[in-house]
Amino acid sequence: MRHIYRCPLRWADMDAYGHVNNVVFLRYLEEARIDFLFRPDKQFKQGSVVARHEIDYKCQLVHRHAPVDIELWVTEVKAASFTLRYEVKDGDTVYVRASTVIVPFDFEAQRPRRITAEEREFLGEYQDEEEAVAA
Amino acid sequence: MRHIYRCPLRWADMDAYGHVNNVVFLRYLEEARIDFLFRPDKQFKQGSVVARHEIDYKCQLVHRHAPVDIELWVTEVKAASFTLRYEVKDGDTVYVRASTVIVPFDFEAQRPRRITAEEREFLGEYQDEEEAVAA
Amino acid sequence: MRHIYRCPLRWADMDAYGHVNNVVFLRYLEEARIDFLFRPDKQFKQGSVVARHEIDYKCQLVHRHAPVDIELWVTEVKAASFTLRYEVKDGDTVYVRASTVIVPFDFEAQRPRRITAEEREFLGEYQDEEEAVAA
Amino acid sequence: MRHIYRCPLRWADMDAYGHVNNVVFLRYLEEARIDFLFRPDKQFKQGSVVARHEIDYKCQLVHRHAPVDIELWVTEVKAASFTLRYEVKDGDTVYVRASTVIVPFDFEAQRPRRITAEEREFLGEYQDEEEAVAA
Repeated sequence: MRHIYRCPLRWADMDAYGHVNNVVFLRYLEEARIDFLFRPDKQFKQGSVVARHEIDYKCQLVHRHAPVDIELWVTEVKAASFTLRYEVKDGDTVYVRASTVIVPFDFEAQRPRRITAEEREFLGEYQDEEEAVAA
Repeated sequence: MRHIYRCPLRWADMDAYGHVNNVVFLRYLEEARIDFLFRPDKQFKQGSVVARHEIDYKCQLVHRHAPVDIELWVTEVKAASFTLRYEVKDGDTVYVRASTVIVPFDFEAQRPRRITAEEREFLGEYQDEEEAVAA
Repeated sequence: MRHIYRCPLRWADMDAYGHVNNVVFLRYLEEARIDFLFRPDKQFKQGSVVARHEIDYKCQLVHRHAPVDIELWVTEVKAASFTLRYEVKDGDTVYVRASTVIVPFDFEAQRPRRITAEEREFLGEYQDEEEAVAA
Repeated sequence: MRHIYRCPLRWADMDAYGHVNNVVFLRYLEEARIDFLFRPDKQFKQGSVVARHEIDYKCQLVHRHAPVDIELWVTEVKAASFTLRYEVKDGDTVYVRASTVIVPFDFEAQRPRRITAEEREFLGEYQDEEEAVAA
């Protein structure tokens, strides 16, 4: 199962080259991630931090009224971290492929924490086994 | 040889967690890269695009008046792309380690172009051979 | 007649105080303005620049999934400028009241230009006479 | 007395028109204000919020390596608010003139608070009486 986030663009996401700036795509991924992890009925209320991003730019994107689709799924779930993968796309046109390593984090104690059983179950629903093996 | 960029922070670089947001570090790298590539006496006037980033977050950074140091160097120079590496740091404290694959780009023709001899020579001055082998 | 723009928020619009930063509201107004002025069937293709903003902050706004409403209308139309007014709101809760003076601009010649007859007619549909008199 | 802040620009402050975006100037003013109000030896540790901005755009600004100067001074000090004025400039070239009404705010109690005697004394040093009368 993949989570789909319809990501609205802003005109100011474009830079002086007239296309969406490479940094702004990370902002889009953040929005997709928050939509995935922090919905009222979802887990991860206890907080998490980003440990690593990898991002490949495939195609330029110019501002338009319509949102872009971000597909998001899970590849690897360890004891105290997990990996999300994303594609930013319109139908067959892929603008960006990326992945993020997330570390669940206890902000009160200011240290990483283990993934809870509920979180693991939730992540499992979006896990793509084949991807995890190939990665 | 490493290029050092003293990167000023902005208060608004912090997010609701009270630390510099993970996306903003990519903005810092952009500033370091522009400082490196586009100084009046430097090459790359013909333009380039970002093909890929990898970024590892090591340590939280909170806004303060003083800039952070960004060390930047070159690891790999191919026919039509090159790789930059960076460390965002204060002395021994490393906040972020990252790398970017840059593709020289002809904006008029809207297609990638080969690295020129002058660009290759310039990049060579900042190339760390050991890193290139290890990578 | 008022133009209504349903403005999506981003999590990163919040600053370290945990509410939408005052500067970001200007970004929201920009989005509402672009939605109003640059839709495919609308005028102002020839370009325009912002000459002045006034913005009053009435109430804090915290990030949430749902968009906020921005109502936008026209108060004054002169020979070479016009004024937009906005309210950023949820039902009766007003977060921000603002106005912007826009100057139609000829980017090729790099100078202001007069409002065209078509533009004047379009703006007239959204003009609130009472407001214009009171202002 | 006027406070001078040397404001660094970022390349990404430019929008698709190739000049510093109107919204970003508000970010520059925020930086100048923080530099003025929150230096280690200064007051306003107790917090404050922005109640209103007025901003006039006089001249386009394009990204360059050198900072712009922001002159900042105080025009009006009331019981529970004060007004700052700014000019963003290079020598005689003024890009922006603006003013901000600030309300000292008690974030714990979530309500406005009165200006303290120490804050009033500090603001008085940067107050321009003539401006206050003329305004």
